[in-house]
Amino acid sequence: MGDKEKKQIKRKNKSQPNKKADSEKKTDTRKSKSAPKKQPKKAKQQAKKPVPEVKVIPLGGLGEIGKNMTAIEYNNEVLLIDCGLSFPDDDMFGIDKVIPDFDYLVNSDKKIKGLIITHGHEDHIGAIPYLLQELNIPIYGLKFPLGLIENKLKEHGIRGDFHTIQAGKEFRVGRHFTIEPIRITHSIADSVCYSIKTPAGRVFHTGDFKIDYTPVDGNPIDSSRLAQIGSDGVMLLMADSPNVVREGYTHSEKVVGETLDGIFRRSNKRIIIATFSSNVHRIQKIIDIALQCGRKVAISGRSMINVVDLARELGYIKIPDSKLIDLNKAGNIPDKELVVITTGSQGEPMSALARMASNDHKAVNIKSNDMVILSSTPVPGNELTVANVVNQLVAKGAEVIYSDIAETHVSGHACKEELKLMHSLIRPKYFMPVHGEARHLQTHADLANELGMPRENIFILNNGDQLTLSAKGASKQEKVAEAHGIFVDGLGVGDVGNIVLRDRKLLSESGLIIVVASIDKKAGMIVSGPDIISRGFVYVRENEDLIDAACERAESIIIDCLAKNMKDWNGIKTAVREGLRKYIYGKTERSPIILPIFMEV
Amino acid sequence: MGDKEKKQIKRKNKSQPNKKADSEKKTDTRKSKSAPKKQPKKAKQQAKKPVPEVKVIPLGGLGEIGKNMTAIEYNNEVLLIDCGLSFPDDDMFGIDKVIPDFDYLVNSDKKIKGLIITHGHEDHIGAIPYLLQELNIPIYGLKFPLGLIENKLKEHGIRGDFHTIQAGKEFRVGRHFTIEPIRITHSIADSVCYSIKTPAGRVFHTGDFKIDYTPVDGNPIDSSRLAQIGSDGVMLLMADSPNVVREGYTHSEKVVGETLDGIFRRSNKRIIIATFSSNVHRIQKIIDIALQCGRKVAISGRSMINVVDLARELGYIKIPDSKLIDLNKAGNIPDKELVVITTGSQGEPMSALARMASNDHKAVNIKSNDMVILSSTPVPGNELTVANVVNQLVAKGAEVIYSDIAETHVSGHACKEELKLMHSLIRPKYFMPVHGEARHLQTHADLANELGMPRENIFILNNGDQLTLSAKGASKQEKVAEAHGIFVDGLGVGDVGNIVLRDRKLLSESGLIIVVASIDKKAGMIVSGPDIISRGFVYVRENEDLIDAACERAESIIIDCLAKNMKDWNGIKTAVREGLRKYIYGKTERSPIILPIFMEV
Repeated sequence: MGDKEKKQIKRKNKSQPNKKADSEKKTDTRKSKSAPKKQPKKAKQQAKKPVPEVKVIPLGGLGEIGKNMTAIEYNNEVLLIDCGLSFPDDDMFGIDKVIPDFDYLVNSDKKIKGLIITHGHEDHIGAIPYLLQELNIPIYGLKFPLGLIENKLKEHGIRGDFHTIQAGKEFRVGRHFTIEPIRITHSIADSVCYSIKTPAGRVFHTGDFKIDYTPVDGNPIDSSRLAQIGSDGVMLLMADSPNVVREGYTHSEKVVGETLDGIFRRSNKRIIIATFSSNVHRIQKIIDIALQCGRKVAISGRSMINVVDLARELGYIKIPDSKLIDLNKAGNIPDKELVVITTGSQGEPMSALARMASNDHKAVNIKSNDMVILSSTPVPGNELTVANVVNQLVAKGAEVIYSDIAETHVSGHACKEELKLMHSLIRPKYFMPVHGEARHLQTHADLANELGMPRENIFILNNGDQLTLSAKGASKQEKVAEAHGIFVDGLGVGDVGNIVLRDRKLLSESGLIIVVASIDKKAGMIVSGPDIISRGFVYVRENEDLIDAACERAESIIIDCLAKNMKDWNGIKTAVREGLRKYIYGKTERSPIILPIFMEV
Repeated sequence: MGDKEKKQIKRKNKSQPNKKADSEKKTDTRKSKSAPKKQPKKAKQQAKKPVPEVKVIPLGGLGEIGKNMTAIEYNNEVLLIDCGLSFPDDDMFGIDKVIPDFDYLVNSDKKIKGLIITHGHEDHIGAIPYLLQELNIPIYGLKFPLGLIENKLKEHGIRGDFHTIQAGKEFRVGRHFTIEPIRITHSIADSVCYSIKTPAGRVFHTGDFKIDYTPVDGNPIDSSRLAQIGSDGVMLLMADSPNVVREGYTHSEKVVGETLDGIFRRSNKRIIIATFSSNVHRIQKIIDIALQCGRKVAISGRSMINVVDLARELGYIKIPDSKLIDLNKAGNIPDKELVVITTGSQGEPMSALARMASNDHKAVNIKSNDMVILSSTPVPGNELTVANVVNQLVAKGAEVIYSDIAETHVSGHACKEELKLMHSLIRPKYFMPVHGEARHLQTHADLANELGMPRENIFILNNGDQLTLSAKGASKQEKVAEAHGIFVDGLGVGDVGNIVLRDRKLLSESGLIIVVASIDKKAGMIVSGPDIISRGFVYVRENEDLIDAACERAESIIIDCLAKNMKDWNGIKTAVREGLRKYIYGKTERSPIILPIFMEV
């Protein structure tokens, strides 16, 4: 047993004393397989030869919804699965997006052999431009996600090294990873699971999925292939978790088609329908129904236009040119003959739908003969912005249909019963729930246990932890990689940290007060000022008394300090800050940032 | 017909051309009732005598969830119904609460005769301390809401003029309003509807309600009294709208009791259960189940302690002293014999449950033998904070049960079928949906129409609009009162407006940059500086190049201005601001507030 292995086992015993049973079992396995007692010498030799160890390190997506990314390592070779972003929490003021920390990959001598993509959602591909700025890595994926990534890279002025793969066709990355993509159903075209043969056994990653027997594209999941892979033996399953807290099954995409068909058929109004631009099956279904109802289609919103263009080019969306209308020329078409497909289903303030709702869209004015359909549900955190857009549309007289009122949307993720099916098909030895918050991972772990997997074979990791797989079994090591999110703000990547965010939070709550004065320190007197300038504190014109009083207070504090012959700028500043802080809080119960600025004359 | 009436009808025809049918009908009614053609002289006399007109003016609660408040006026007398607050939207940075605008009431010669309270939720009573600071008004309500208001007023150092009323007993406010409170079921004790006899007919206000035939306190709704009132004739119904978009019925509070009973009985863990402190029936049910399971009860969180004290005092919560434990002394009690009832069911950052989740609670440390139950659903906008607390608790090893997993909560508001029942019992002539966003009011109006009420008898108002009721019918006038929300920030009421909020928003997104310099304008030269100070912009130590370059840029702009002999401070400041704005945006794609501060020497 090498030093490294000893250390690992030691650390393991230390940090996970309750895994003893597993540890013992592993020892047994090794004994019976490769070290029968009869041949002590050979056993010793074999023990020296290292057992192949594969490491699985989630760099994002665990304990959160977003920035999904996993590294699988063998010796020096690294295979990456997905590279997504997450959207900022409410307290991440001014942050545009959050990406995984690539330090672990960049600052090492590891060879990153390739990035394989499960599907083209932002939380799986959105951080690729930032990764490629640091590392040049070949990207493997099906046509549609690669098309989306290519568009994204163009915006960043980057060219990618793309390898188009096909579902069902094995390919190799590096020397040690043989990979089979298996088609799976999700809310975007060209989604796959990956079966990855590694030197320590097979790893199966579901990607994001639901089990849809009646998808729009007529490609249901290949359950027999999944069962075959399960029979061949899977060492580790990593499976999608966000809907594990929901009982039953996620409805088929077909249900949405039926709902929309019913709505379209009974309406003579102009129809404006918002959905996720990436959901090309949904968009195709909307187009199909529109054409059947004798309507033409116009597309609205930058990302919707881009995706529809790409999807038509690749053959994923089909609509005759004659039926696709330029939105700017749609004014002449009678209401009952038009469907506008638009972005903005999450109420995003700058989206096409939000601009229509606030009378700010150049081609579409909402009127009482409009029916607006939100073919979506609010992503957690967007409930209020969506409701706001709905209310604005209703106030303009439009009829608005959203997911509270009709089943205009179904989730793309598997509920409890679908997950049970996946586990029972794949029948892995070990299980690591992925793609979920702590509560989802825990519930998914409980589900695996209910299905018969022993607790010690189930591993809940945090981002940056490592799961080591070998013939000896599986074991977890904590924090092998830094895996905090990196903030992107405008062009800056990682230049906004907690101090800047704390200041932004304070500024947002009560604004700031600047105290400016010119001081002649030698003479011990104020030459000009102090003046008070404030931003985001109070409406100054109506609160002159307060500002004047604060100014006097600041002046007397400075005079006091100078009278005491205090020469230390910082001391005087602290005195002013503290004195004003108490005064302002007493008068207003607010705590603006107080910033004394002294000029020495 | 007086001038005023003419004007009203004129305005009405102008703004609501589609109400013609109604207008004609009213004319007919008046003719047949008071102006038969035979007696032209008498008719003229009668027309001079003004028809009693009652005005209904919602001052809050329409087009929003929150700050419910309605004024009902006859001649000079005003009756107020409720006086609630709303919680700030995400873009109201630093605002603590929003209250109705009282200007219409304060700056007039009207006599505010009384305030009647439907129930004790914050969105119905929360703004009373602010109202009483402006006007001294008697308050009428049942015991429990008055107790809550009294506690609230104490915190503000105000004494209220309270009048305890009883369900089923008529009382009079002013000379013209005769009021009967009718007990109704909602998620707080002592909720009532009001039947208000006015000189123009009866007005019925449901307050917040659901129809619960099996409430915890054994007082189901009095449907026969409601039917009787309906038979007696109701001019105007104002009814609760937030759940009108939901089909079917809201489940009975009994369902929650059954869920909790099942959970308690199968657990030997310590149970910590969070719910709304105002829901005393829920709290009583939790206590009952706890005692049945041989557990004692401890209370956690300031508002929970206050409400339980008040409710025990008034007899609304019953628990023997021996079973109620001080939380600080609960450490000795075995896990399986304890239930902690706590605040924090909305994930509020400073609440007891959030402090437990973040290891910041002095009496409770979360451990793996804890079961935490959230007997609540997230109020829209709180989804992420609730999920955050759940995740923290799960990560600490607790078993967490929340509304996604089990029916631990039911709404307090009526769904579609319950609303239909209310409409069919009250059978009003006119209907005004209240307590809801635009989408809720519209759907509720549609519901009334489906039930047979003509569109012209249904009035969707905005806050500050007026509905006039008389024997001639009902008509709407827009904007008789200012009814924007007034922001409360710390001790300040109304001193933060849109400019301050805009600055807080800008500061929160990109922080600010201050450029300071001392300038000798006569000599046309910079004496000291310019220096750059920033807050919330970038982490300065790691971005010295950027800051230095910006500083140089500012210096050259100032020198340019001085060289051009520019004497105008504002001109130089604008040049610096514009020059830096472009430079900073080009380098970072961020737009901090730029604040040049020049001292003249």
